[in-house]
Amino acid sequence: MKILIVGGAGMVGQKLAARLAVDGRLGNQDISELTLFDVVPADQPAAGFRINVATGDISEMSTSAELVASQPDVIFHLAAIVSGEAEADFDKGYRINLDGTRHLFDAVRVIPNYVPRIVFTSSIAVFGAPFPDSIPDDFHNTPLTSYGTQKTIGELLLNDFTRRGTMDGISIRLPTICVRPGRPNKAASGFFSNIIREPLAGHEAVLPVDDSVRHWHASPRAAVEFLRHAATIDGAELGNRRSLTLPGISVTVGEQIEALRRIAGDKVVARIRRQPDEAITQMVSGWPQRFNATRAQALGFKAEQSFDEIIKVHLEDELKGIIR
Amino acid sequence: MKILIVGGAGMVGQKLAARLAVDGRLGNQDISELTLFDVVPADQPAAGFRINVATGDISEMSTSAELVASQPDVIFHLAAIVSGEAEADFDKGYRINLDGTRHLFDAVRVIPNYVPRIVFTSSIAVFGAPFPDSIPDDFHNTPLTSYGTQKTIGELLLNDFTRRGTMDGISIRLPTICVRPGRPNKAASGFFSNIIREPLAGHEAVLPVDDSVRHWHASPRAAVEFLRHAATIDGAELGNRRSLTLPGISVTVGEQIEALRRIAGDKVVARIRRQPDEAITQMVSGWPQRFNATRAQALGFKAEQSFDEIIKVHLEDELKGIIR
Repeated sequence: MKILIVGGAGMVGQKLAARLAVDGRLGNQDISELTLFDVVPADQPAAGFRINVATGDISEMSTSAELVASQPDVIFHLAAIVSGEAEADFDKGYRINLDGTRHLFDAVRVIPNYVPRIVFTSSIAVFGAPFPDSIPDDFHNTPLTSYGTQKTIGELLLNDFTRRGTMDGISIRLPTICVRPGRPNKAASGFFSNIIREPLAGHEAVLPVDDSVRHWHASPRAAVEFLRHAATIDGAELGNRRSLTLPGISVTVGEQIEALRRIAGDKVVARIRRQPDEAITQMVSGWPQRFNATRAQALGFKAEQSFDEIIKVHLEDELKGIIR
Repeated sequence: MKILIVGGAGMVGQKLAARLAVDGRLGNQDISELTLFDVVPADQPAAGFRINVATGDISEMSTSAELVASQPDVIFHLAAIVSGEAEADFDKGYRINLDGTRHLFDAVRVIPNYVPRIVFTSSIAVFGAPFPDSIPDDFHNTPLTSYGTQKTIGELLLNDFTRRGTMDGISIRLPTICVRPGRPNKAASGFFSNIIREPLAGHEAVLPVDDSVRHWHASPRAAVEFLRHAATIDGAELGNRRSLTLPGISVTVGEQIEALRRIAGDKVVARIRRQPDEAITQMVSGWPQRFNATRAQALGFKAEQSFDEIIKVHLEDELKGIIR
């Protein structure tokens, strides 16, 4: 089985690659080759199969054509300009998130008798306020950001191309990934992770919104499981509606902080500095807070059960259990 | 006031142009100039203001740039590859319906301090089965055709570009226009009109689906009123959800035929020949049947009250009241 990860240098792409390298297989098939594509060279995990590293600009049609020429059996399309940057740079967001996605699907389409599974990481940003208390699977898509708009368009293309038999796509709407390791990126949602990760590492973190802000989270470890499951699920079970809202944990920022206090104590919590930011508060007010991920749960997707568990995953996977 | 109609040679574009020519104004402003753009030269109505006729390929970026260089105050974007053709010709549908729409919005976006009202004719094809008995305004978009996918993407782009202040857009989801005058086009929905228009003109019509098929209709005259109203409505009343499902009449094919019988008699109805077509039946089974067009009605959009009225509009506007 050949696998391609578009966006393979990103945080989720790297964790997925590491997991595939350890397993040596996906579903019930051995992996023969893994290609990690990104705008910068991806790190390669040690693996018992061949790993290729490729770089390029996904918004150029020729890039996608080259990437899929070897006809990978499974394509994970994780590449994206994140929400804050797509809002700040209109052209870049559309070029990468819309054109890049469409070119990838088109490059697959024009190869005869080639119908790979494509797992597209969509986002809960496909939804926009006002919301019901808990958002059902069939809530309408009314994104309030360019990023959410671009992800929704990606879902629509995936549905149509899949319906027409040129690919076998699944869009998974990831919760906000928390605790995101490493340096902050330009995602406007970054503070949800910053206020956990930085204090645990001995650093100060800025909280730009009120403690009452509620949001929807899953860990990076859960994200990798979502991707692996989406790659091997029977597409027929999805029918013509190929987009899934994935399970997660709904907590307020205040509840995140109390979970941190239970696990790491007052000293660590004291490293969170409240500094309200009107622009971020405004953007976050349009974000969803809670979902009934009924379809995805019925299809076997699983997330954490509490925010405490999410923090413990971070401690295990990133910090070797050590709190500074 | 300068007005541009993209798709000005089409049936709805021509009727809109004729109405604007008669009125000489739109809302409370005099019309100074009307441009009719299409892939073929549009007929020009006699008018008390200047009318330009332009031709070109809307899928080329330069075409849109030229069209909007004069900064029309209102742009009606009616141009589209219809459902049957967009399904038969994948590339053409995406090129015109997606790229063409995006180029138009982009051409407007890059002109500083230019924020025209753009009225985009979307379609009830943005919805796909399974449906509730009557479809609410906030039903999710799950199109089952490439045409419906492309219209949904157009709506999303319109929402995002409007939110970002580069245009002032409104998407109106027209019911199926019935009775469509003239020759049949490639829309898969053509038979809904054919079975009324052709018998009234003394010709045989083929009915490819069962009498129980229910669908959602409004007349060409109603469509022109929808467009005029959408051009002048206060955009702020729409908030961030710029797509409106418009009112119409929900009738079965059998009810259409009984209305025809009441107005034109058994002799005319006898000209309908039943010839089931599996492909059309299959496609139509995924189409919506009835809507609660609550938002649009509250905003003042009005359609016919019965299918009899729709037939009478056809008799008045197309046949001078004469049944053959």
